Amino acid sequence: VSRYKLILEYDGRGLVGWQRQDNGPSVQAALEQAIFRFCGETVTAHAAGRTDAGVHALGQVVHVDIDKPTTTDTLRDAVNHHLRPAAIAVLSAEAAADDFHARFSAVRRSYLYRIVNRRAPLTLDAGRAWWVPTPLDAGAMHAAAQILVGKHDFTSFRASECQANSPEKTIDVLDVARRGEEIEIIAKARSFLHHQIRNIAGTLRLVGAGKWTRADMARALAARDRSAAGETAPAEGLYFLSAEYEDE
Amino acid sequence: VSRYKLILEYDGRGLVGWQRQDNGPSVQAALEQAIFRFCGETVTAHAAGRTDAGVHALGQVVHVDIDKPTTTDTLRDAVNHHLRPAAIAVLSAEAAADDFHARFSAVRRSYLYRIVNRRAPLTLDAGRAWWVPTPLDAGAMHAAAQILVGKHDFTSFRASECQANSPEKTIDVLDVARRGEEIEIIAKARSFLHHQIRNIAGTLRLVGAGKWTRADMARALAARDRSAAGETAPAEGLYFLSAEYEDE
Repeated sequence: VSRYKLILEYDGRGLVGWQRQDNGPSVQAALEQAIFRFCGETVTAHAAGRTDAGVHALGQVVHVDIDKPTTTDTLRDAVNHHLRPAAIAVLSAEAAADDFHARFSAVRRSYLYRIVNRRAPLTLDAGRAWWVPTPLDAGAMHAAAQILVGKHDFTSFRASECQANSPEKTIDVLDVARRGEEIEIIAKARSFLHHQIRNIAGTLRLVGAGKWTRADMARALAARDRSAAGETAPAEGLYFLSAEYEDE
Repeated sequence: VSRYKLILEYDGRGLVGWQRQDNGPSVQAALEQAIFRFCGETVTAHAAGRTDAGVHALGQVVHVDIDKPTTTDTLRDAVNHHLRPAAIAVLSAEAAADDFHARFSAVRRSYLYRIVNRRAPLTLDAGRAWWVPTPLDAGAMHAAAQILVGKHDFTSFRASECQANSPEKTIDVLDVARRGEEIEIIAKARSFLHHQIRNIAGTLRLVGAGKWTRADMARALAARDRSAAGETAPAEGLYFLSAEYEDE
């Protein structure tokens, strides 16, 4: 048996998320089925980030074990063939060490949250970004975001259904920058709590709109109470960008 | 009556194109209906570029005449409200001179043609770019494109159903550049023949793939015969970018 590391891109619309579920199509089930069609083996795919329904990926990292001898190019092309017409694609496949684990070996995960900040509703970007029609100050959002960088108890930004043992996480990077009518939030950490980035994005919106100050952000963090922070921003703005591993 | 200049963005998927037709939803019909819902007036909308089915717009220019007194902000927001859920949006509205004509006053039109050049099929960009899985040399495409710049008889790149009086057009700009896995073609001219840019894109692909040389491109242009040039690239890669007017 050989272990392979796959990089996946997918459009989260119409998917129930990474994880296999009874209520609709998941990335995991689609990938495992495509691999079955390729080699006749029933595999379990493990991902660096278990993205929620509607969340996209530009560089999800997955590992699978396959018995059938193959080349990485054949694996990538054949799985892509069998994934059609799902909006899921294998960008690359490479051989991985036997002890490589896409989820447990990851030491850093990077996400992008996209806001389109303009009066007009979205057309080409519908379902691919959060539409915020009122003006946002990206500089103020970035300044307030720096309060969250570092090791903190993120209970205020944690979904009630979060299964992590501890609410403590260390955010390495939380950058907010405007590019034209778009505001991009880049978040990097070893791992995140459930809905942590979407809850942060929803709270940063309050700062960007001038309703909240940096001091309000600090108070929300200190409160350790989900109701002290802002709304959960929609899934459609969130993208899993990449995962990093120690050997890299 | 007041004349207004509107800038439109739309996702061409599921639309039969700009022009009103019996066989499906058009941008023109959707816009005219939204304006009717706003002010009760039956107007005719005129566009700078009569985009085909599946072609997108990032900055289509339209003019309409409306009797009802309104502000440009109200017009933009109300028409956007009534356009929902169509993937068509008014980015801006401004007052225009009585003799302004979105189509006949335009002195330059700019289009973008997007190719995504990678092995993996498209997910988030499906329907929004032409997927070309074999490697393309953007530098060779750009060099060959320069043969088409200037005033020429473009019969070889003209759809058989084209209604222009003459096959002569003057291309001001035809730039090809790679940005990562994407190849962008920018085309600018006073006006284009029917399918001209898509026929050029399909022919440039032959050059990018190494099947054609610059000399082949020159021969195709000189042939004045549609069958001498390459295939028609798909509509989904084409975007109407902008139109320029003399007073600007």
